Amino acid sequence: MKQIDTAVLGATGMVGQRFVKILANHPWFNIKALTASKRSSGKEYKKGVNWVLDTEIPKSIENIEIQKTHPKVDGDLAFSALPSNIADSVEENFAKKGFAVASNASSHRMESDVPLVIPEVNPSHLELIEKQKQNREWSGYVVTNPNCSTIILTLPLKPIQEKMGLSSVKVVTLQAVSGAGYSGVPSMAIIDNAIPYISSEEIKMEKESKKLLGKVDNGELNLPDIDVSAQCNRIPVTDGHMESVWIETEEETSPNEIKKALEGFMGEPQKKDLPSAPKKPIIVKESEDRPQPRLDKDLGDGMSVSVGRIRGSNKEFKLTILGHNTIRGAAGASILNAELMTQKGYLK
Amino acid sequence: MKQIDTAVLGATGMVGQRFVKILANHPWFNIKALTASKRSSGKEYKKGVNWVLDTEIPKSIENIEIQKTHPKVDGDLAFSALPSNIADSVEENFAKKGFAVASNASSHRMESDVPLVIPEVNPSHLELIEKQKQNREWSGYVVTNPNCSTIILTLPLKPIQEKMGLSSVKVVTLQAVSGAGYSGVPSMAIIDNAIPYISSEEIKMEKESKKLLGKVDNGELNLPDIDVSAQCNRIPVTDGHMESVWIETEEETSPNEIKKALEGFMGEPQKKDLPSAPKKPIIVKESEDRPQPRLDKDLGDGMSVSVGRIRGSNKEFKLTILGHNTIRGAAGASILNAELMTQKGYLK
Amino acid sequence: MKQIDTAVLGATGMVGQRFVKILANHPWFNIKALTASKRSSGKEYKKGVNWVLDTEIPKSIENIEIQKTHPKVDGDLAFSALPSNIADSVEENFAKKGFAVASNASSHRMESDVPLVIPEVNPSHLELIEKQKQNREWSGYVVTNPNCSTIILTLPLKPIQEKMGLSSVKVVTLQAVSGAGYSGVPSMAIIDNAIPYISSEEIKMEKESKKLLGKVDNGELNLPDIDVSAQCNRIPVTDGHMESVWIETEEETSPNEIKKALEGFMGEPQKKDLPSAPKKPIIVKESEDRPQPRLDKDLGDGMSVSVGRIRGSNKEFKLTILGHNTIRGAAGASILNAELMTQKGYLK
Amino acid sequence: MKQIDTAVLGATGMVGQRFVKILANHPWFNIKALTASKRSSGKEYKKGVNWVLDTEIPKSIENIEIQKTHPKVDGDLAFSALPSNIADSVEENFAKKGFAVASNASSHRMESDVPLVIPEVNPSHLELIEKQKQNREWSGYVVTNPNCSTIILTLPLKPIQEKMGLSSVKVVTLQAVSGAGYSGVPSMAIIDNAIPYISSEEIKMEKESKKLLGKVDNGELNLPDIDVSAQCNRIPVTDGHMESVWIETEEETSPNEIKKALEGFMGEPQKKDLPSAPKKPIIVKESEDRPQPRLDKDLGDGMSVSVGRIRGSNKEFKLTILGHNTIRGAAGASILNAELMTQKGYLK
Repeated sequence: MKQIDTAVLGATGMVGQRFVKILANHPWFNIKALTASKRSSGKEYKKGVNWVLDTEIPKSIENIEIQKTHPKVDGDLAFSALPSNIADSVEENFAKKGFAVASNASSHRMESDVPLVIPEVNPSHLELIEKQKQNREWSGYVVTNPNCSTIILTLPLKPIQEKMGLSSVKVVTLQAVSGAGYSGVPSMAIIDNAIPYISSEEIKMEKESKKLLGKVDNGELNLPDIDVSAQCNRIPVTDGHMESVWIETEEETSPNEIKKALEGFMGEPQKKDLPSAPKKPIIVKESEDRPQPRLDKDLGDGMSVSVGRIRGSNKEFKLTILGHNTIRGAAGASILNAELMTQKGYLK
Repeated sequence: MKQIDTAVLGATGMVGQRFVKILANHPWFNIKALTASKRSSGKEYKKGVNWVLDTEIPKSIENIEIQKTHPKVDGDLAFSALPSNIADSVEENFAKKGFAVASNASSHRMESDVPLVIPEVNPSHLELIEKQKQNREWSGYVVTNPNCSTIILTLPLKPIQEKMGLSSVKVVTLQAVSGAGYSGVPSMAIIDNAIPYISSEEIKMEKESKKLLGKVDNGELNLPDIDVSAQCNRIPVTDGHMESVWIETEEETSPNEIKKALEGFMGEPQKKDLPSAPKKPIIVKESEDRPQPRLDKDLGDGMSVSVGRIRGSNKEFKLTILGHNTIRGAAGASILNAELMTQKGYLK
Repeated sequence: MKQIDTAVLGATGMVGQRFVKILANHPWFNIKALTASKRSSGKEYKKGVNWVLDTEIPKSIENIEIQKTHPKVDGDLAFSALPSNIADSVEENFAKKGFAVASNASSHRMESDVPLVIPEVNPSHLELIEKQKQNREWSGYVVTNPNCSTIILTLPLKPIQEKMGLSSVKVVTLQAVSGAGYSGVPSMAIIDNAIPYISSEEIKMEKESKKLLGKVDNGELNLPDIDVSAQCNRIPVTDGHMESVWIETEEETSPNEIKKALEGFMGEPQKKDLPSAPKKPIIVKESEDRPQPRLDKDLGDGMSVSVGRIRGSNKEFKLTILGHNTIRGAAGASILNAELMTQKGYLK
Repeated sequence: MKQIDTAVLGATGMVGQRFVKILANHPWFNIKALTASKRSSGKEYKKGVNWVLDTEIPKSIENIEIQKTHPKVDGDLAFSALPSNIADSVEENFAKKGFAVASNASSHRMESDVPLVIPEVNPSHLELIEKQKQNREWSGYVVTNPNCSTIILTLPLKPIQEKMGLSSVKVVTLQAVSGAGYSGVPSMAIIDNAIPYISSEEIKMEKESKKLLGKVDNGELNLPDIDVSAQCNRIPVTDGHMESVWIETEEETSPNEIKKALEGFMGEPQKKDLPSAPKKPIIVKESEDRPQPRLDKDLGDGMSVSVGRIRGSNKEFKLTILGHNTIRGAAGASILNAELMTQKGYLK
C-alpha cells in the first residue's frame, strides 16, 4: 500500500508528541512535515521539542526540521494538535489547499457540516465530508474528534444506546493534568489538591456527546433526546481521565445486560482491523475497585476504554469509565479517524 | 463553669489525634483518660502515639498514660474514635456504666433510638436520648455523628431543604486518603492515581443523609422523600473531601436564591455560640474554581463547609461542596455534638 | 511604639502573599502600599491577586489598591518580593529615594557593601549599611536575605561553626515547588517525578553560605575557609525544603555535642525578642524519620529550622535539615531582617 | 535450547509480580511453580494476587495454582522475592535440595561464600559458587543481587573505578515508594512530603557496593579502598530511584572523560547478548535536568541506568544517577544473574 504523506501541525506540544510517537511506525501514514510556532521552527525536531514522553524520540523523526504552520508544507493529510484559537483559520487554510485535516482542536467540532467522529460510535457521519466540500468549495476538508473526556464517555454509551436506549446521562470527571497541556496546570495548584473547574469542558461534554450519538440523514444531523449534564474536576494524575456516571436507559435492564452489551461491542475499526484499533474498544473490569488511571489507562495501547462498577436496577445505573486522555482522547482519536477516512476512500 | 471529665477512646489513631488536639484547650471538656489498644497501653501518650499532625503534641497531654479501652476509666463523657468492629460492644459498655458516648464510629448510627446528629442540621434528634435510655435501661447513652462525607454533604443540603424543598440528590465524592486511617491507603495505590471505590461509603451516604434530614416526632423518626445516590472515589489528597453534587429542589428557584439560603444559614451552634462552632457553618466561594481541598479545608478551623460553583435553573442545580474530613467530618463533629448535648442539659 | 510605614513590592506573587499575611498583624510595620506589575495595578488587592494561601486574605488588606512598583509610593521601609531581573534597578531606585529595602531578591546579595543577613547568624553584617550609603551616596539602602535553601542550611551551620569549627559542607536538597513561584513548575513535570536541576541554585548555596559565615571587619568581609558543595533537586512537595548534609568539623566531636550546640543556640532575634523570632530557631527532632516537610515546616510559625538524624563520628557527620522555604526562607527572612534593622536603630 | 524449570518464591508481592511479568515470555526460563504465603496458596494466580502492574496478568500464568513456599515444588532454578526474615532459612532449604537460588533478599548477601553480583560489574564473583557448595555441602547454591539503590549506584561506578580509579563516594538517594513493597509506605506518610529515613538502607549501600567493587582471588574477596557514605530518603514517586552522588577519583580526569567511560561501557551481559541485557547498561543524558524518574526509569525496558549532570574537575565530581528499582534494582537483576549463571554453565 502506498503511504500517505502526512503533516503534524503543532508537533512540539504534548498531544503533538503523542502524534509523532504513534505515527513514527505507522503502516499507512508517513510523516513528511512537522510544524510548530516560530520559536521552534527551523530547528531539528529533537532540538525544538521539550520531549516529555517516557520513551525516546523516534530515531526516524528526530532530525526532521520543524517548519512554520503553513499549508505550503508537504502532504495530503494533516493532523492538527493546534490550540483552538489558532486552529480555526489555519485548519481552514489547509483544507482549502486540499489537505484532509484530522483535527483534535475544538474550533470546528460543532459546525453542522463538519464530521465529529469516534470511529466506533458514528462512522457514518463521515458522509458530511461531501456536504462540507460543496458548502465551502474546498478541495480538502476537516474532520474532528471530540474533546478527550467526551470520547471516553461516549464510546461506552454507544452500545447502551443501541441495546437498551438512553435517556439521561450525568457525569462527574476526575481529569488528568495532561489534558491542559504541559504547562497548563501549575504543580502548586494541584499537588495534594483538586480543582472543581475546567474551562469550557462541561459544555463540550454536554454538546459533543449528543452530536456523536445523533444520526446523519441526507446530510442533516438529528440530535437524540438525551439529557447530558457534566461536572468536571482536575485531580493530581498525569494521564488518564476517570468518570463517575449515572445513566438512565429507555428500557428496563440489568447490570449484567449492560456488561454484555459493552463487552460484545465491536465497531468498524475492529471489523475492518484498522491499524490503531484496539482489539476490544471497551474492556469491562470485574474488580470492585477498577478501573484506575495509572493501572488501566494503557490497556489496548491507550486506545481501549475501561468500564467498571456497573450497578443499579430498572432504568438507573451507575458506572465508572476510564481512558487515556492524550491517546484515545486526542492523538490516537485523530489517527483512528484518519484510518477510517482512508479505509472508506476519503483519503487516497 | 465546671469542666466535664472526658475520655478519648482510640486516642492514638488519626481521628484520635484530632480529638486530642482540639480537646487540649477545650473550655468545657477536660481530658482525664486516653485509651488505645494493648500495644500502646501503659505508655505515655507521646511514646505510644505516632503523632502525624503538623503541630506538636499538646504539652498538657503528652505525659498522660494510655489505658486499655475499658469503662473503668475516669470520666462522664467519652469520645469514641474506635474502629467500627470494636466500637459496637465497647460503646455499649461505656453507656451502661453511665458515660455519655459521643461516637464517630458507624456501629450504632442507624439504630432507631440512637441520635445521628449534625448540630446545625437536626439538633432536635437529641430527644432520642431519653428513648434510648428507657429502651436499653442504660444510665448513659450513645450519640453518633455521621460518616465524614455525609456530614460535608448534608450540612449545606439543610438550608436548601428548608427554603426550597429537596427531592433528589446525586453526589460524586473525591475523598482524601486520611478518611481511611493513617495506613488505610498505601502510597503505591494512590500516587498518580484515583480509586473508584470506598468500602460501604456509598450506602452510608445514601442512608445517613436521609436520617439526618428526617423529623423526630414523639420519638419516632420520619424519613423525608428524597432520592439520594452516591458514587465515592479516593484521590491523592491528604485531607479534605470534595463533592460534585446535583440537587433537585421541590420549588423552582435560582443559583442566587440557593446562595442566599446557604450564606444566611445559622444553626443552633452559632446561635448558642458553642465553643467549636464556626462563625459561618457554610461559606460560599465566589471564584469559579473553588472550593479546593488544600486551600479551603481549614476555613473556620476546619469546621466550616465551603460551597461553590452553584449553577443550574428551574429545579435542577449543580454545586461543589468541600469540608475537612477529620475535623468537621469526624473529631470536630463529635465534639460539637457533645457541646450541644451539654448546652441542652444532657451532660452535666 | 510608632509604626513604620511599609510597602510590599511584588505583593501578588507567592512570596508577596506571605509578606502580606505576616505583615497584616505586625506590631511594628504598617502596610501603606502594595505594588505589582501593570496587569494588577489599579485593582483592589483582593481582585488583583490570585490568593493561594490556605487562609483568607486579611480583611485589613483586601481593599488596598495595588500600585505600580515605583518609589513614589508611601513608606520608609520596602519589602521586595520582586523577581531578580526586575529587582536590580528597582531596589536601587527605592534606596535612592530613602527607603530601607529589605529584599528577598538575589540581585544585590553578593555585592561587597550589601549586607546578606540571617539575624541569628551574622547580625553584625548590618554595619555594611553605612559603607553602602557612603559608597553609593544613597539616603536609603538595601539589605538582603539569602536564597531559601541557603538560609535553611546556614542557620544550623552557625552554632557548629562556633563550637567545633567547620571545614567542609556537602548538601543535597529536596526542594518544594513553591520555591519556583506559583507557575514555576508545571504539574506534568513533577507529579510522580523528581528533577535533578534548579537553575543557579547550587552556585547560590555555595557562595551565599560562605558570605553568611564570614566576618565583617572595618567594613571588609572575610570569607571563612569552608568548602561548600551543593546538589539541588526538585520534588513533588508544595512547601518545605529538606536537605541531606555532610559536614566536616575542625575539632573532633560527637552527635551529642552537635545536638547540644544546635538546641542551645540563641541568636539576637531570640535575645532581643523580635516579633517574628521563633522561640527556638533550631529544633532538634529525636525521631529517626524526622524532620519531614509536611509535618515540620510550620514549626515556630514557619520560622524554626528542624534538624534530625545527626550521626557520624570524629570530624565527619551526617544530618537532615528542614525549613519552610517561603516563610523562613523568604518573606519571614526579610521581615526578621527588618525587625533587626529596626531594633539596631537603622530604621526609625 | 532446553528451557530451565523455574519457581518464583513470593510471587504475589510487587517484586514477585515483576518476576512473573518478565519470565512469562522468557526464552530460557519456564515458570513451573509460583509460591506465596498460606493466605494465597491453593488459589489460581489471578485470584491469589492483587496485581498492581499496568499491564494485564500474562495469560500463560494466570491459572497456575499458587503453592506454599517449600522446596518440594518443581524446578531447578528458584527466584526469591521473599522478605528477608523468611528468605534466610527458606533459601537454604531450596539450595540443599539442589536448586540454584537467584535471590533478591538481603539475608545472604554479605556472607563470604555467597556471590553478590551485578553481571556488568563483577561476573567473576560467581566462582564463589563452588566454594559455597563445598563449604556447605549443598547440591544447590544461592546467588544474590544487591539492594535496589546499591545496584543503581554501583553499575556506573564500575567503569569509573576501572578507568580513573575511585577513592570516595557520597550518595544521597531520592527513593520511590515501591521499594518498600506495596503496602510499605502509607499515602498519608508521603503525599506532599518526604521521609529522611529508610530502615537499614544506608548500611546496605555502604557495604554491598564495596563487596561488588572488590576482587575475588582464589575464593577470597578483597575489598577495595573506597569510602562510601550514604543518606537515604523516600519521596512521593512510585517507581525509579534517583541518586545525587559525589565521587573522588584516584587520577585527575574531567566530566568528558567520565562521560566517555560511562557511554563506552559494556559488560558481559552485553558481550554475551543475554536475553535481559539492555543494549546500553548506562545511558548518559545530555539535558541539564535529566535523568528523571518518571521519564527515564523505563529506558532499556527498565534495565538501563541513566546518568546525567556530570560536573566537577580534578578529582571531585558530581553526578545524578537513576534506575528502575523493581526491575534493574530487583526482579530484572535476579533474572540477569540467572542468565549469567546459565551462560557460564552453572545452570543446566
